[in-house]
Amino acid sequence: MSPANILHPLPPDLTEEVFETLAQSASVKIERIVSNGQASPESGWYDQDDDEWVIVLQGAATILFDDGTEIALSKGDYLNIPAHDRHRVTRTSTDPKTIWLAVHY
Amino acid sequence: MSPANILHPLPPDLTEEVFETLAQSASVKIERIVSNGQASPESGWYDQDDDEWVIVLQGAATILFDDGTEIALSKGDYLNIPAHDRHRVTRTSTDPKTIWLAVHY
Repeated sequence: MSPANILHPLPPDLTEEVFETLAQSASVKIERIVSNGQASPESGWYDQDDDEWVIVLQGAATILFDDGTEIALSKGDYLNIPAHDRHRVTRTSTDPKTIWLAVHY
Repeated sequence: MSPANILHPLPPDLTEEVFETLAQSASVKIERIVSNGQASPESGWYDQDDDEWVIVLQGAATILFDDGTEIALSKGDYLNIPAHDRHRVTRTSTDPKTIWLAVHY
């Protein structure tokens, strides 16, 4: 019996960011996000009802908060984003592609 | 502002496995576990009340379930372990040390 792997395979089409749910219950969602240079959301901010814990497993990215704080994330860096802490992703790497693990809880 | 990193630093004393809570709410606990050759628990089985989603971020490990199924995990491999699915860790790597991320939910 062999387990799934979060690093490969990657989705063949990365024109848009790809979100995949890996596990889920009533109160938590565990998600893989693969980015390929995208900033997101394209306009405005993420303003989420749940807390989000996020880690970069491959590549690099920058998150901007609406108070002007900018956080650069490299491989292994993680961050807790409280609900309604408005933020956006301003940069993601393309080589290697950025692989995120996000836990919404 | 710089984020924390799950890959380093590692705890200086790894005589025992080291469990650290990275984020927590009433219904979820996100935990880093660092293993250095240990099998666990030392006797018997883990028999948990919550579901556990677990991923190996560095190193390698083997999990044995009480139905005899053995699953070898390498870097990036993940597994969902339903509540009360009795299991134990029979092997963890020492070079590199095994870094797990576990989400109890």
